[in-house]
Amino acid sequence: MAAIRIAVVGMGKIARDQHLPSIARNADFDLVASVSPRDPGVDGIANFTSLDALLAEGPAIDAIALCTPPQVRYELASMALARRVHVFLEKPPGATLAEVDALETQAAETGTTLFAGWHSRFAAGVAPAKAWLADKRIERVSIVWREDVRVWHPGQAWIWEPGGLGVFDPGINALSIATEILPQPFFLTSATLSTPANRAAPIAADLAFRTAAGAPVTMDLDWRQTGPQSWDIVVETDAGTLSLAKGGAVLTLPSGTVHNDDEEYPGLYTRFAALVRDGRSDVDTTPFTLVADAFLRGTRNSVEAFDD
Amino acid sequence: MAAIRIAVVGMGKIARDQHLPSIARNADFDLVASVSPRDPGVDGIANFTSLDALLAEGPAIDAIALCTPPQVRYELASMALARRVHVFLEKPPGATLAEVDALETQAAETGTTLFAGWHSRFAAGVAPAKAWLADKRIERVSIVWREDVRVWHPGQAWIWEPGGLGVFDPGINALSIATEILPQPFFLTSATLSTPANRAAPIAADLAFRTAAGAPVTMDLDWRQTGPQSWDIVVETDAGTLSLAKGGAVLTLPSGTVHNDDEEYPGLYTRFAALVRDGRSDVDTTPFTLVADAFLRGTRNSVEAFDD
Repeated sequence: MAAIRIAVVGMGKIARDQHLPSIARNADFDLVASVSPRDPGVDGIANFTSLDALLAEGPAIDAIALCTPPQVRYELASMALARRVHVFLEKPPGATLAEVDALETQAAETGTTLFAGWHSRFAAGVAPAKAWLADKRIERVSIVWREDVRVWHPGQAWIWEPGGLGVFDPGINALSIATEILPQPFFLTSATLSTPANRAAPIAADLAFRTAAGAPVTMDLDWRQTGPQSWDIVVETDAGTLSLAKGGAVLTLPSGTVHNDDEEYPGLYTRFAALVRDGRSDVDTTPFTLVADAFLRGTRNSVEAFDD
Repeated sequence: MAAIRIAVVGMGKIARDQHLPSIARNADFDLVASVSPRDPGVDGIANFTSLDALLAEGPAIDAIALCTPPQVRYELASMALARRVHVFLEKPPGATLAEVDALETQAAETGTTLFAGWHSRFAAGVAPAKAWLADKRIERVSIVWREDVRVWHPGQAWIWEPGGLGVFDPGINALSIATEILPQPFFLTSATLSTPANRAAPIAADLAFRTAAGAPVTMDLDWRQTGPQSWDIVVETDAGTLSLAKGGAVLTLPSGTVHNDDEEYPGLYTRFAALVRDGRSDVDTTPFTLVADAFLRGTRNSVEAFDD
């Protein structure tokens, strides 16, 4: 099978740090173009200031990876699907749930692959955690996701705008893992969202969920953490405690710690290639639904202004 | 087929104004019990202070209509489905999207009927509006839903709490009609939610959506309307203008005004009986998704305090 000719759209930090290296080492893909309104682009390939221009002037492409902020992603994804260009959506898959549903319908109607990627699900500990939990009774789950926004999202104004999710931008990674590994669905019972006086999106949130069987799931999200960072999920079960640390990379079971190589973005591209080859889509909006529920049902409070 | 023995749970205004009369005139149903922590109940039937007590002490029931505030609905619905009791959910179907998804899964697993009812879809003009629009090109849609909260929701504290939706409680009726009659999906592009300084839920909202084909859909929600009330949807098409007035009851097409009898709650119960008989569920969360998207993506502003 010929390599999938791919363009990366939105040349921000995540595109350069993760997408370009993962594409470069995957023989199923051939990077042929980049799109960015401002970025100088990538040496050795065609660079465009808009997806319109790329589609009009070529080179031919089979797929795009959409790494723009979520607020502008629908238009670009829809334009690509209309040309039967396969689309890999960075997380979160859109600015609203309904637009992702509309894209899923459009992908089905055009026979094109749409992949809503959740990179944290490809962290080394996630698949073995899911396998271990499959037959356990869940008693309690604690999710702590505390990081320093100045380190991880320096100067990213869009992330604070409506549709930008604020601290749920990393928080949705935790939810993408929890929804993958827990053997039951869970849903929000209460939430408090703390938003800086000068911003539209929350900087911290305390959330309480319960599983369908009634087990409590707590989530502590905070973007004001300096010093050591925490990306931990602890699951207490009838057979002992499972912990996933470092964002899913390190899994500890009652029998000891499991070490595997981390494969987040390479894993996403392996999956995307398989979906394109098989003519299928994979659009799981569950993590995004839980975030929308937090905004829908959460209590708001205003906290100290935040400046980069 | 024997009549469906039904209990009404949550004896508030909507239960007394709409559910009881509609059940009384539908031969497919036999009202056998009511549940309410405080209400004195209904003459001539068994009345309980909790669903637990009804399920423990009888009489036997086949179905419940859940008319409680949405914040407590999941537990009750899940308890009923676990006993294979069919469930009719008043709108909105829950306090969060994820819990409704979990109920839908539980209904499927237990072979029980779950019906998320959208009463406005049974307004007289809705079905003919949908039929007329099916082959039209939509050019522009305007939704204006302005009513006096003091008239329609007097002293209902829960509606202002987190999970209570505020002005989206009536607004979701408009969205349930628009999602039914328009031949394409639509999704939010921007929103401003105005929340009283002393409340958690919005009293007004300005929303902009677009259809998948790019037509603008505007929505003006306001609970501060005194005097004449407005529940209007106007759809401009390539074949002229359709208008639905009075919450979907009065349909005007370019050829004139169509008059039919209004059948909102009777229509819901006819549908619920058919679903139970056929062993099927009907859980369309699209209107609720659009509301969650408004909370997720909308800009917030604080307005004058509101007191009943």
